[in-house]
Amino acid sequence: MDLFTQKSFVVEYWQYVLPIATIIFTVILVNITRKVEKPKQKIPVGKINKESVVKGGLPDDEPSFDAGEELTPALEGVGHIPYPGIRVPHPGGINGFYEMANDRRSVRKYSSRPVDWRLIEKCIHAAGTGPSGAHTEPWTFCVVGNTEIKQQIREIIENEEYTNYAQRMSRQWTTDLLPLRTNFIKEYLTEAPYLVLVFKQGYSVRPDGQKKQHYYNEISTAISVGILLCAIQSAGLNSLVTTPLNCGPALRTLLDRPASEKLLVLLPIGYAADDCEIPDIHRKAVNEILVKY
Amino acid sequence: MDLFTQKSFVVEYWQYVLPIATIIFTVILVNITRKVEKPKQKIPVGKINKESVVKGGLPDDEPSFDAGEELTPALEGVGHIPYPGIRVPHPGGINGFYEMANDRRSVRKYSSRPVDWRLIEKCIHAAGTGPSGAHTEPWTFCVVGNTEIKQQIREIIENEEYTNYAQRMSRQWTTDLLPLRTNFIKEYLTEAPYLVLVFKQGYSVRPDGQKKQHYYNEISTAISVGILLCAIQSAGLNSLVTTPLNCGPALRTLLDRPASEKLLVLLPIGYAADDCEIPDIHRKAVNEILVKY
Repeated sequence: MDLFTQKSFVVEYWQYVLPIATIIFTVILVNITRKVEKPKQKIPVGKINKESVVKGGLPDDEPSFDAGEELTPALEGVGHIPYPGIRVPHPGGINGFYEMANDRRSVRKYSSRPVDWRLIEKCIHAAGTGPSGAHTEPWTFCVVGNTEIKQQIREIIENEEYTNYAQRMSRQWTTDLLPLRTNFIKEYLTEAPYLVLVFKQGYSVRPDGQKKQHYYNEISTAISVGILLCAIQSAGLNSLVTTPLNCGPALRTLLDRPASEKLLVLLPIGYAADDCEIPDIHRKAVNEILVKY
Repeated sequence: MDLFTQKSFVVEYWQYVLPIATIIFTVILVNITRKVEKPKQKIPVGKINKESVVKGGLPDDEPSFDAGEELTPALEGVGHIPYPGIRVPHPGGINGFYEMANDRRSVRKYSSRPVDWRLIEKCIHAAGTGPSGAHTEPWTFCVVGNTEIKQQIREIIENEEYTNYAQRMSRQWTTDLLPLRTNFIKEYLTEAPYLVLVFKQGYSVRPDGQKKQHYYNEISTAISVGILLCAIQSAGLNSLVTTPLNCGPALRTLLDRPASEKLLVLLPIGYAADDCEIPDIHRKAVNEILVKY
């Protein structure tokens, strides 16, 4: 009797049970679909989302892959030693350094005068002294002196830059760049004796095959570029920081760099041409950039 | 008759019509919910999406607001002048600079020995000589010497860092940091005589009220931090680059900085404590970071 009563309840209220079951089923189904879609929105490994650092959440280069059972510190068996203090400041102190830094200008026209390779090598070595998240040293400096490769780099960049200037960049942006006399023709890419392509490494691979995540690789690499600029100036050489829009993958392929690396900036290095001109622009006064508390 | 037939159809197949209608309704509802959620994922103005630079598309700090009818170059009426060449290299050349850069170490324990304000000011001035997209100089250096404000900064950061270390950071990340002896206690934030909070500016406002977009503001500001580190070393001072995870908005509010600015890094500056220790770590050889073409 009981069983029968229950049965007749289901049969009688079938028209209510079915829609409720359908709602539950649909909600579950939609949620499964959502989960499957998520990876598409996931930010790729090696990308630093700085907004998350200041807005909430983790930077996107936070380890996203399983590190395996054993958690080996990135710097194994590292001890601590007493810090001896600064032994090598600038000979002219901070004023001497300021004069040197303030003397630096971005140069867009280069002489063909050759550059001693040892200067370039030492500049890169100096750039490598920069700090990095968990001391991962997440940078690769590709230095191109080969004429043919420089020509190929120029072709890749000019093709992309033509599209950038003609279509991708806003009118305001291209207008803002007018006084700097920049356009899609980049003669310095073949004129300068050396091109330095700075790649940031999203991760590296340990000898045991485990991936080693490089935290804050973009900020770290950009900071090392700041040190590189000081080094180039120290060596009496000229340079220019450029960000070839959309050319990263093609240049990475050309230079046969691994997928873990992404182009951050490209700098020509050389001596300024005798007839080189620079825009007559000035820097902000210190009280325009410094706020004291 | 027709009408009646239709009616009886609806009545008869009500049990099928209801679930189908429910499915459609639920799908629509879930999609509306999804759309409402989307703005959270939208990238805010002023953020540089470096991936887009190397992966395709424009960086996100490409002007996203209407610049008005008149396109005024960011640098109005700028002429060009002959470039006189480098007048102030490093007195010791690139080798001298390398020795100085390589002598720099991250310091986590500071002496209470006071620091001459003029040194700090000149360091910031030097950092301001960095290159920037379209010469926008998109940086603000907030220097905190006030004891109470330093204490407030420490409280904000330690509260967040406790959560970071306990919950947000992966086990691999906190393990990687073990040899550096870092944890959520940040004594240097009150020990060091000065804290420098470096903000990147997404945009500025022209005298006429128009917004002026700051292209590549994050790369530019990070490069200026590299120059700042060289300046601090030049001055015989010690420092440490930190990225206080998730503390940006609270620190921006504390220092009363505008919404156009976002915290990039925080550096304590001072003299190392007498008993300061540093991890016994070494830098990569130049052939590990340089690839020649």
